[in-house]
Amino acid sequence: MSYTAPVTDIAFALTHLAGLHKFEGHPEFENYDAELVEPILDEAGKLARDILAPLNQTGDKAGSKLTEDGVKAAPGFAEAYAAFRDGGWMGLSAPEEWGGQGLPKVLGLAVMEMFHGANMAFGLCPMLSFGAIEALLAHGTEDQKATYLPKLISAEWTGTMNLTEPQAGSDVGALKTKAIPNGDGSYAISGQKIYITWGDHDVAENIIHLVLARLPDAPEGSRGVSLFIVPKRIVNADGSLGADNGVKCIGLEEKVGIHASPTCVMEYDGAKGWLIGAENKGLACMFTMMNSARLNVGLEGVGVGEAAWQTAFNYAQERKQGKAEGVSGAAPILHHADVRRMLTTMRAKVMAARAICYATGVAADMAEHAETEEDRETAKLREELLTPIAKAWSTDMGVEVASLGVQVHGGMGFMNETLAAQLYRDARIAPIYEGTNGIQAIDLAGRKLSMADGAAMTAMIAEIEQTARDARETNDPNMVQVADRLVAANAALSEATEWMKRTMKEDREVALSGATAYLALAGDVIGGHFLTKGAIEARSESGQIRGRMTALAGFFAETALAAAPGAVAGITHGGQAMLAESEALFGLN
Amino acid sequence: MSYTAPVTDIAFALTHLAGLHKFEGHPEFENYDAELVEPILDEAGKLARDILAPLNQTGDKAGSKLTEDGVKAAPGFAEAYAAFRDGGWMGLSAPEEWGGQGLPKVLGLAVMEMFHGANMAFGLCPMLSFGAIEALLAHGTEDQKATYLPKLISAEWTGTMNLTEPQAGSDVGALKTKAIPNGDGSYAISGQKIYITWGDHDVAENIIHLVLARLPDAPEGSRGVSLFIVPKRIVNADGSLGADNGVKCIGLEEKVGIHASPTCVMEYDGAKGWLIGAENKGLACMFTMMNSARLNVGLEGVGVGEAAWQTAFNYAQERKQGKAEGVSGAAPILHHADVRRMLTTMRAKVMAARAICYATGVAADMAEHAETEEDRETAKLREELLTPIAKAWSTDMGVEVASLGVQVHGGMGFMNETLAAQLYRDARIAPIYEGTNGIQAIDLAGRKLSMADGAAMTAMIAEIEQTARDARETNDPNMVQVADRLVAANAALSEATEWMKRTMKEDREVALSGATAYLALAGDVIGGHFLTKGAIEARSESGQIRGRMTALAGFFAETALAAAPGAVAGITHGGQAMLAESEALFGLN
Repeated sequence: MSYTAPVTDIAFALTHLAGLHKFEGHPEFENYDAELVEPILDEAGKLARDILAPLNQTGDKAGSKLTEDGVKAAPGFAEAYAAFRDGGWMGLSAPEEWGGQGLPKVLGLAVMEMFHGANMAFGLCPMLSFGAIEALLAHGTEDQKATYLPKLISAEWTGTMNLTEPQAGSDVGALKTKAIPNGDGSYAISGQKIYITWGDHDVAENIIHLVLARLPDAPEGSRGVSLFIVPKRIVNADGSLGADNGVKCIGLEEKVGIHASPTCVMEYDGAKGWLIGAENKGLACMFTMMNSARLNVGLEGVGVGEAAWQTAFNYAQERKQGKAEGVSGAAPILHHADVRRMLTTMRAKVMAARAICYATGVAADMAEHAETEEDRETAKLREELLTPIAKAWSTDMGVEVASLGVQVHGGMGFMNETLAAQLYRDARIAPIYEGTNGIQAIDLAGRKLSMADGAAMTAMIAEIEQTARDARETNDPNMVQVADRLVAANAALSEATEWMKRTMKEDREVALSGATAYLALAGDVIGGHFLTKGAIEARSESGQIRGRMTALAGFFAETALAAAPGAVAGITHGGQAMLAESEALFGLN
Repeated sequence: MSYTAPVTDIAFALTHLAGLHKFEGHPEFENYDAELVEPILDEAGKLARDILAPLNQTGDKAGSKLTEDGVKAAPGFAEAYAAFRDGGWMGLSAPEEWGGQGLPKVLGLAVMEMFHGANMAFGLCPMLSFGAIEALLAHGTEDQKATYLPKLISAEWTGTMNLTEPQAGSDVGALKTKAIPNGDGSYAISGQKIYITWGDHDVAENIIHLVLARLPDAPEGSRGVSLFIVPKRIVNADGSLGADNGVKCIGLEEKVGIHASPTCVMEYDGAKGWLIGAENKGLACMFTMMNSARLNVGLEGVGVGEAAWQTAFNYAQERKQGKAEGVSGAAPILHHADVRRMLTTMRAKVMAARAICYATGVAADMAEHAETEEDRETAKLREELLTPIAKAWSTDMGVEVASLGVQVHGGMGFMNETLAAQLYRDARIAPIYEGTNGIQAIDLAGRKLSMADGAAMTAMIAEIEQTARDARETNDPNMVQVADRLVAANAALSEATEWMKRTMKEDREVALSGATAYLALAGDVIGGHFLTKGAIEARSESGQIRGRMTALAGFFAETALAAAPGAVAGITHGGQAMLAESEALFGLN
């Protein structure tokens, strides 16, 4: 069994950690019913386990291929996509108005975690469609919505994001693709885009490209960028598909991992496109897609981490090596304390990242649907605060946990035949795309901490304090110990936050040099807070989840939380030692 | 330029950190002359840069191939090996008696770091020969030495280590390969060995396999294992090569990295072998090879880390993205504080690991050649203590630094065409082979700390205290700050050490659950100690090395050393939270 959806853990995280129960009886989510959560997760879990997971290693080996007729997906992927489409999974949390089921976004995210875990290369295809749907919902005209949304939400068509060009990666404003008005309301789009995920394929009948380009009279830089809808095949007025558009894939990248996900070089040669959103406001539209994608990429980290943990746990039960107390003959390596420590590290971090990502999802739902304006604003600020942490902390975690998974496998982990090896390769892209983790850190430290005078982080720190009080009030000595660790870690987060806010004004360079370390600390403390909350909540649960959550919280408290106070100096002083000697280190003045 | 030997840093680490100057005027090293160090390093650096580095990516792509005539190395590797052989590099630190140059081992290790950095797949070939040479020197008869050593030391032949079988990896005692006496002093060796590095190839005319096998009447487990010399081609009495022996490669593993290094499945079918060392004492002989190999694997971590740092630094100077103060137009990403932080992290860790490995090498030299028995014993204990740290800390560092190198490259880092991507794949094996890093941690915590009542670690901690005093006595406020960090970190190491020694006796399982975290802490503190020493020593140097060492020590002090006190709880308490809930976490009682 290569991947089994962890339905119990996911349901627990949704309900007890992220606060899915807030939607119960909510007028905006009249379709939501807490009783539906597990059945939905079960059903998605079957697709993940039975259809997607079996194609993970075969897809890695075969890859997708560029032919004269465009890109052919790896064997079995078209059928798997059909099963995904027919299951209605794309529309789970899309608006009913456009054919969706109107459930909370966070449920859709939990389902995506499973698909990423079962087969990350596959999961990327719907993930990009999500981004296109979000952009259309937020910025499309009624006509554009009517033309594209129903087919994207039914998954009959897929979507892509076309941002990067060879000279314009993290700096999107440097892009050169042109959009010339055709005079009929459409534009002729010309240019080359790179790293376009699922940019071409044969698993759906049309592909809706969202493309950043420049109008003829556009200002330089990011203020002169506009977003265009460029379908692979033109959509006729009656909704039927017309001629091929002037866009094609001219190359596939050879990558370290996610081989079954075609990473395309796309050529736009006077392709017909339609402006979405205002002229020169493409960056704002792009960020709508990006924010959706960033959280989804965080869930790739969680999914791959979960897969790595499961694979390593299975292997540790099967592989016999050495002796252990109470076992006759060679013992499964699970009996060795060091192996168990690796597995516990993996599981604790996966659960912490899951909680952070789901909490971000709930905040995104509440930002749209909470009853009062004030609640929506508060939720929006929390979503903004948590998004870079969800993306960066979870994907760094994904790489670390996948690497531990390799280590548990020993020599077998270095063999291409092993899923663990594939996960190590696949996981590595997630800290890079949709905004590198360094950019997430800058976003967190430079932008999110200053929004509304840092209200979201202040609220988060207060919430963590409350969790520590709750833990102490259990009067369970183990939980009191966890509470002590959480309080000290929270004080470290608070200190680092104040330093960061102050230094960002006084010496931005020094502040930025600590941004990544600050994000790591924030993720550790917020993750530890959720695990602590989990251990408290699990006290009223039956079965193994109580012991499991207690152990994960205790382990995380003694490792990541206990280490938090010692991480402050790295934020506040690490960069200064380096910046003072830029000449000697880098030949820079 | 894909790899340039960092001769200045290597020479500095050898002389000022590891203590190579101890050999000056030493009667055992009469060939050693401090003036020779840089010329030797320069010459090795040329081979690394001009011959080995250019084959790194081509070798990765082509790999080695199994043909009907045995394994063919990747294109160009035979020529590169010839250049290595003709340069006399194999014999640099081998005894003059057998054709070597009799220089300190640590010099040979420094040279190997370069070869690993330029081309790790290549470096593995001589690395295995080193192990065979060490085993023959320590355990071979005069006749065996005369037959095999000159050709191994001249690099005309290569060596291998044959330990692992499918059911016997970390638990070597579970092996089944048989050795039946032929009645003429030789044995018939039959069985299958896996993961045999450079087990077959066409770059040298003979291969000397050292093979663990069981005699017919051998006891079970590791006490019934003997070591045999099994040449690929039988060596005639006159030294000429005779018939092919009954050993062949029957398969090559498809690995995540080091593609140009053939990882062979070897079949021994009644192959002629000769016992080396005593019957059933093969494990002791194996550990001779292993200890040599472990330190060498640590240097793979250093070499790959150095290559990753250089590659990332080069890319960061070329790749332009975004704006920076004082730069018109798009600025090289080196100007972004976050990128510089990644690069500084890489460089500091590489230098710390290099110092640990070289110090281990000097200890190994002194253990053999120091003048008094007492000095030799003290040095031996230090070698024993540092070897698992050198292996595990440096290889974990190699993976982390290679991963950071990918991150600096952004999307390009995930493309197979990029050296950074290859380094990420190559680096991953080093924490696994020659004893997994978990086994290194058990060796450190369970065995090395108890040797001579922990004298080596006690001495190390005292030495670190002295370094902190020296730093403080500079009266440079930056160095005083480093000293404070080092003192606190050293106190943490001391506390963790006492706990580990005590707990290993009282509750071995709890102790072992903290072993990996303990090794990580020890590496951080000892590494920080060497960087601090470097900053002190560099104060009397001219040029950029003074500023560089000051910055690296300062950065490491505020990050790794400042974090050390917070890591103690993870050692002393992390495992307990986990072990208390083994049932809920793992289904174990």
